[in-house]
Amino acid sequence: MTAADADPGSGPGAGPDRDSDRDPATAPATDPVYPHWTEIPTRWADNDVYGHVNNTVHYAFMDTAINTWLVERGGLDFRDGPVVGLCVESSCVYTAEFAFPDVLAAGIRVGHLGNSSVRYEIGLYRSDRSTLVAEGRFAHVFCDRRTRRPVRIDGKLRAALEELRRKP
Amino acid sequence: MTAADADPGSGPGAGPDRDSDRDPATAPATDPVYPHWTEIPTRWADNDVYGHVNNTVHYAFMDTAINTWLVERGGLDFRDGPVVGLCVESSCVYTAEFAFPDVLAAGIRVGHLGNSSVRYEIGLYRSDRSTLVAEGRFAHVFCDRRTRRPVRIDGKLRAALEELRRKP
Amino acid sequence: MTAADADPGSGPGAGPDRDSDRDPATAPATDPVYPHWTEIPTRWADNDVYGHVNNTVHYAFMDTAINTWLVERGGLDFRDGPVVGLCVESSCVYTAEFAFPDVLAAGIRVGHLGNSSVRYEIGLYRSDRSTLVAEGRFAHVFCDRRTRRPVRIDGKLRAALEELRRKP
Amino acid sequence: MTAADADPGSGPGAGPDRDSDRDPATAPATDPVYPHWTEIPTRWADNDVYGHVNNTVHYAFMDTAINTWLVERGGLDFRDGPVVGLCVESSCVYTAEFAFPDVLAAGIRVGHLGNSSVRYEIGLYRSDRSTLVAEGRFAHVFCDRRTRRPVRIDGKLRAALEELRRKP
Repeated sequence: MTAADADPGSGPGAGPDRDSDRDPATAPATDPVYPHWTEIPTRWADNDVYGHVNNTVHYAFMDTAINTWLVERGGLDFRDGPVVGLCVESSCVYTAEFAFPDVLAAGIRVGHLGNSSVRYEIGLYRSDRSTLVAEGRFAHVFCDRRTRRPVRIDGKLRAALEELRRKP
Repeated sequence: MTAADADPGSGPGAGPDRDSDRDPATAPATDPVYPHWTEIPTRWADNDVYGHVNNTVHYAFMDTAINTWLVERGGLDFRDGPVVGLCVESSCVYTAEFAFPDVLAAGIRVGHLGNSSVRYEIGLYRSDRSTLVAEGRFAHVFCDRRTRRPVRIDGKLRAALEELRRKP
Repeated sequence: MTAADADPGSGPGAGPDRDSDRDPATAPATDPVYPHWTEIPTRWADNDVYGHVNNTVHYAFMDTAINTWLVERGGLDFRDGPVVGLCVESSCVYTAEFAFPDVLAAGIRVGHLGNSSVRYEIGLYRSDRSTLVAEGRFAHVFCDRRTRRPVRIDGKLRAALEELRRKP
Repeated sequence: MTAADADPGSGPGAGPDRDSDRDPATAPATDPVYPHWTEIPTRWADNDVYGHVNNTVHYAFMDTAINTWLVERGGLDFRDGPVVGLCVESSCVYTAEFAFPDVLAAGIRVGHLGNSSVRYEIGLYRSDRSTLVAEGRFAHVFCDRRTRRPVRIDGKLRAALEELRRKP
């Protein structure tokens, strides 16, 4: 069963059962352990007409948690550096809701680190870090800024990504 | 092979080969046929520091194409109606880039229509509708506005969604 | 009287009287004539929790209308060109509301063209171009991309801005 | 002199002189004292193609600082409460730049409190609270949620706004 098969009785917030047959490719990992956490306050305009944080904004949370790490630990110079990280794939499963003025906790880890690419797994939790609200995946390919061809992840950047593979 | 395994030589814009072993659960469908299209102009602030439309904005394109249809054809009253469509899952595969001031063409179809939920498939193309830039999936569960429990999709709303299952 | 002095009986949509003593510095000009118009469709996430387009989004409309002109007519190369337009001041007076899925008409003209700077006046209208919803001002200083020091507006860029001073 | 008259030699970051003749209606107040401060981290997508926080985002900072106060101290119930705060006027003067991953400090105070309306003054500073980056004004009219007619500001809400008029 995927989300698109949900019957009345399941739904957002309906509990773990709704995910029991979830497609393994997008299933949340069962281990809620992340080597790095970022606190992100919501903004007024994150709330949409339904009074909760709009689905698109969760990707901004992921993008922010990941790039903060890349800039602060990986030496990413997004203005002038020779290498840029381009998103090639992303996904999110929503199991509950945030609403402004919540502050959320974003846990990030690296699920796969390849030659030129990396797949992050991101857990978006309430600030107590115990209640999962949404779980995402996000893949970067690191490319030459001008040619946009993939390049090998090296040096400080690779070290920072390796750090996100460690269990705390 | 997933995007996260990309080697130098593949990458965004590197052509169909990079997807050859893509996980079937997120694989773009091969049929580029959509029963409904929406034109969406980009905005200045859609461009991020890399000079292209930020990955998160593609979800805003999807959300907009889908909800325009629901409002105009499905009778969705997002302000006061008893039923709201909540996103429970979304994903996107990026194969090329948009950049302001591009105008894009969003094709939408319904891949699965259940009792209370629906999965949309969205193709984001250049305005000529022949060049695919990103392909997304997006699942709504329709819920009671107050209780947020799933409800059966009926009447005008179901008819509008059925219309998106038709091949043109 | 400024907006901040409004009494019950005036307010958004309360008609022209509420602006009768408006501070001249932010008063809408009385001439609703713009040499250039852009159509901008709203997006789902533009609506905030009050079911109308959030105030911040009106600045994105202005930014988009202006930069579309600068790119298409003024030869602005925002990725690699030597000159960039930096916003130094902006303002908006809101007299009514947009709501997704409205399409709006943005009229732009140049109110003042200096040596290195320009002040735009932007009218955001319903698509029929007869009902004003919000009126904005927006000032760019054109600067050297690297030093961020003002430079003289010249050539194709100045010609494009002069064109926005013409009455139609 | 307004921003639109800037000559080469002045401009964003060119120092206090450029504001010497600024129109009093939009002149920053000289007293950098705010009774309430909020810390706001920037997000990746706040940066635009010029590598700094896009001008429109500063209004989201203001909106967020103000509404956080209204919800937490003023008892604003933006989902179901009978009264909503609608923005009728806003402005911002930009004197420097933020860039992701900056964290900023937003100081807010009330400049004028009327019967049904309020004008806030917002200073957006670097996190040390000593360097001003942008200064804004923002006016709310409080209205009945359904009729959108102005109502008198009373009770807990008025008390919270009064608190923002006090010098610390």
